[in-house]
Amino acid sequence: MDRVSQMAIIGTGLLGASVGLGLKAAGFRGRIVGVGRRPESVQEAIARGAIDEAAPDVPQAVAQSQLALVAVPLSQFDAVFKQIAQGDHEDLVITDVGSTKQEVLEAARRRLAQPQRFVGSHPMAGSEQQGPGAARADLCRNKPCILTPEPDTHAWALERVEALWTMLGMRLIRMPAQEHDRQTAVISHLPHAVSVLLVQVAAERGGWQIASTGFADTTRLASSNPPMRADILWANREEVAASLEAFRRRLDRFCDLLSRGDQEALLAMLQQTKQRRDQWLKRQGRFLEVSACEAPQPQNKPENNATASEHLA
Amino acid sequence: MDRVSQMAIIGTGLLGASVGLGLKAAGFRGRIVGVGRRPESVQEAIARGAIDEAAPDVPQAVAQSQLALVAVPLSQFDAVFKQIAQGDHEDLVITDVGSTKQEVLEAARRRLAQPQRFVGSHPMAGSEQQGPGAARADLCRNKPCILTPEPDTHAWALERVEALWTMLGMRLIRMPAQEHDRQTAVISHLPHAVSVLLVQVAAERGGWQIASTGFADTTRLASSNPPMRADILWANREEVAASLEAFRRRLDRFCDLLSRGDQEALLAMLQQTKQRRDQWLKRQGRFLEVSACEAPQPQNKPENNATASEHLA
Repeated sequence: MDRVSQMAIIGTGLLGASVGLGLKAAGFRGRIVGVGRRPESVQEAIARGAIDEAAPDVPQAVAQSQLALVAVPLSQFDAVFKQIAQGDHEDLVITDVGSTKQEVLEAARRRLAQPQRFVGSHPMAGSEQQGPGAARADLCRNKPCILTPEPDTHAWALERVEALWTMLGMRLIRMPAQEHDRQTAVISHLPHAVSVLLVQVAAERGGWQIASTGFADTTRLASSNPPMRADILWANREEVAASLEAFRRRLDRFCDLLSRGDQEALLAMLQQTKQRRDQWLKRQGRFLEVSACEAPQPQNKPENNATASEHLA
Repeated sequence: MDRVSQMAIIGTGLLGASVGLGLKAAGFRGRIVGVGRRPESVQEAIARGAIDEAAPDVPQAVAQSQLALVAVPLSQFDAVFKQIAQGDHEDLVITDVGSTKQEVLEAARRRLAQPQRFVGSHPMAGSEQQGPGAARADLCRNKPCILTPEPDTHAWALERVEALWTMLGMRLIRMPAQEHDRQTAVISHLPHAVSVLLVQVAAERGGWQIASTGFADTTRLASSNPPMRADILWANREEVAASLEAFRRRLDRFCDLLSRGDQEALLAMLQQTKQRRDQWLKRQGRFLEVSACEAPQPQNKPENNATASEHLA
């Protein structure tokens, strides 16, 4: 971030404002200008100390900046890239926080004169809250950030974007945009859809009065920002549909197992699944525990230690 | 609990030991004896201060007690009730912590001489951890506890059991056993099953490396104790199957909406679902925040404020 004397944050919501706060906390000495559709959001980001000042519009925000962060809902990317193109210059690097990457890359190729200076980013940090009032300097810390550079992306542009996320304490992971979209469908968009369906079943069949932390955790994502989530599901609809289909096949097997009365297979399935998740948690736990309240896992060994697993196959 | 000079805890695992610790912390002056299948578990409960001493067996544990708490896996209830019958006496009240209630009540009617002194309880407190080592004095505090008295349950027995859970700071809710089993299928057993399926889809399609707090929360229940969970799913299989069926109908509608490309209906669905959950959370939040890390909800008003909801209907 040494080459960045001014940075533009386009969209001063939860994530945009958190990036500003995080940079200030990490000692970034450049100027941070912000621009957003809602003036009160920009003003709140200034009041929170997340940005230094408001820019009148996107072209002017990027014209003097060496780095621009697009942190708007997915449905606005096309329009924002058009505006960036009006203030674009040779030393400007553009990145984003969009939750799907193929659609964003297509928009960048369509609207920017030099998409080689655009680097797709997806900081996996969020909350079911929204707006700059909920911003936190440590929102990104220890979370994964996925970068989806293309074969023709300028190396110096990629470096600048990596410096940004590194300064915020993120763990960088590079992968192709298509791979990103497949994986996020599995571990983010599908869980969100499932959360929504769980709430609907409770609304249909009752149980709210006795619902406790298990229900609260499994449905937390259903409280996420609806327009943002609808945008994401729509932008990534093909991969989301494929994940939903895989989920449905698993659901059928589960129902089948229950109706067959195969208690042994049911237990084996639960043991294998727990083992797989605990394995992951053990590896990721030190990152997760910073922000989530997931309790440390007990060291119980599953009785069935088979690695080749019927149910996970 | 004034009438209880000795209490027997049968099964000194997470919940049994937490009840012991909680009673001591709340100033219970009676003696607490414990009995369990695994001697090391009982010894650990003593070492933790959760029980005063080990009883040699169930009949002797209950013979001198005025209250017996059955905190064993569901599959052992039948055998434990038989043993209780051998030490039973007119001033003994029996309750339990079983996660399903119809099957437990049937076992009580089958095995106990006077099932009118049995009161079904389901303290909605737990953790994905297990064993007395994970016990906490405040595990039950502010959580709901469901009681399922029958028409012929003795009023004084119900009072004694209510005094137990009240002393631990639980919120008491009475309902018929069948209603309990229907509601817990919706808000506990279905979410658990769905957590398991989400882990399976990730094992099939990948994404572990980038999985973050959203995935961790929605799959937390998949790390629960497999034998305990298999017992629960099996004991409540009819209601679980009905909930899975309702879930599948919702899943089909969701997939249909996505493939139709109806973005407006998708957004409306997400808004209605968020509204329903936030409403619940607002009412329950003060209880939940004691133990879960669910962040306080923002006060954003959903744009679509319709109360009559297509998707939740």
